[in-house]
Amino acid sequence: MSASHYGGFTLYGDPVSGNCLKPRWTADLLGIPYTWVDVDVVKGETRTPQFLAMNPAGQVPLARWPDGRTLPQSNAIMLYLAEGSSLLPSDAFARAEALSWLFWEQYSHETAIAVRRFQKHYLKKSDTEIDPALLVRGNNALGVMEQRLTGRDWFAGGALSVADIALVAYTRVAHEGGFDIRLYPAVARWVSRTEDALGVPHAQEFV
Amino acid sequence: MSASHYGGFTLYGDPVSGNCLKPRWTADLLGIPYTWVDVDVVKGETRTPQFLAMNPAGQVPLARWPDGRTLPQSNAIMLYLAEGSSLLPSDAFARAEALSWLFWEQYSHETAIAVRRFQKHYLKKSDTEIDPALLVRGNNALGVMEQRLTGRDWFAGGALSVADIALVAYTRVAHEGGFDIRLYPAVARWVSRTEDALGVPHAQEFV
Repeated sequence: MSASHYGGFTLYGDPVSGNCLKPRWTADLLGIPYTWVDVDVVKGETRTPQFLAMNPAGQVPLARWPDGRTLPQSNAIMLYLAEGSSLLPSDAFARAEALSWLFWEQYSHETAIAVRRFQKHYLKKSDTEIDPALLVRGNNALGVMEQRLTGRDWFAGGALSVADIALVAYTRVAHEGGFDIRLYPAVARWVSRTEDALGVPHAQEFV
Repeated sequence: MSASHYGGFTLYGDPVSGNCLKPRWTADLLGIPYTWVDVDVVKGETRTPQFLAMNPAGQVPLARWPDGRTLPQSNAIMLYLAEGSSLLPSDAFARAEALSWLFWEQYSHETAIAVRRFQKHYLKKSDTEIDPALLVRGNNALGVMEQRLTGRDWFAGGALSVADIALVAYTRVAHEGGFDIRLYPAVARWVSRTEDALGVPHAQEFV
């Protein structure tokens, strides 16, 4: 499952961002070589002229190859690295389902769970200072995941895929945003299962 | 560029939603047969028990095949239909760039431009009732697009792709959200070019 022709890139990322960990975990799992460069979002390092010249959207993660090609967007980098590997289902419909979960993650999950975690855990806002809709939307997202995972181990296809990597990034630290994963037992089991598959430490122990 | 094995599905969508038009335009362009079923989001038709049984996330568009398989998320349906066609670049890096624009569209473009259009044009809110950040974020998104399109006709690869279809859906009606596309001349030319390629009417004339 090697894809070494994609290797040798620089991955610009903020280590506290789940979005940035997605391509990092993917490259590590597939044995694709890269160089990690820390970029501190809160300090404004994605808004410098140098960084904006590489990514006009001013976002991390960003992958940059030695020939100057750049690729932003966590899920797009992950998909590029995963192409031809077991992390992207070979069946066309299972692959479409994996992509569907990636888009849902960025639209309906990250925008509630990651945003509330950032405000609560990093900006140290009190619950009353945080838009109450984020808690509702985040719990709705966890409910959708619980339903999907009831009776199945992985989000798409029959094995770990890019969908699980994308979704676990912020789900495993959802408690830092004030979400109680224990209310979603299938999600809790899947979090531990996915962390084990990725070889990353358990952010929470559920037993 | 036919992909008729994907055909024969039902596409549940709200005709005022650009997200729902994306897979519709894609299927039309590729000559893939489908049946369109109107779902009115504002009337709560995505929240009925019947609809939630098909898509627990309660979102349109949703594609459903006669064997019961369902696929939500506009960009995922579009990618599934486009597989093997010229709408998905065959070069791996150009394909990754197309995907990157799809994720950016859902995260940074739709959430500002489509949301402000919905509030202004459909909910008839006055400008003072609308979060001012939406105008700033929407114009930032248009600026990123202008930069990308300066010196190139299409977002990824050398021809119309899924990235253009996804991005044009709400860009062509951005004026309904209070955005002035004339301030972004490369974007304005690309909107007309993409509408022509899709065979859809010009939502605005720029000359």
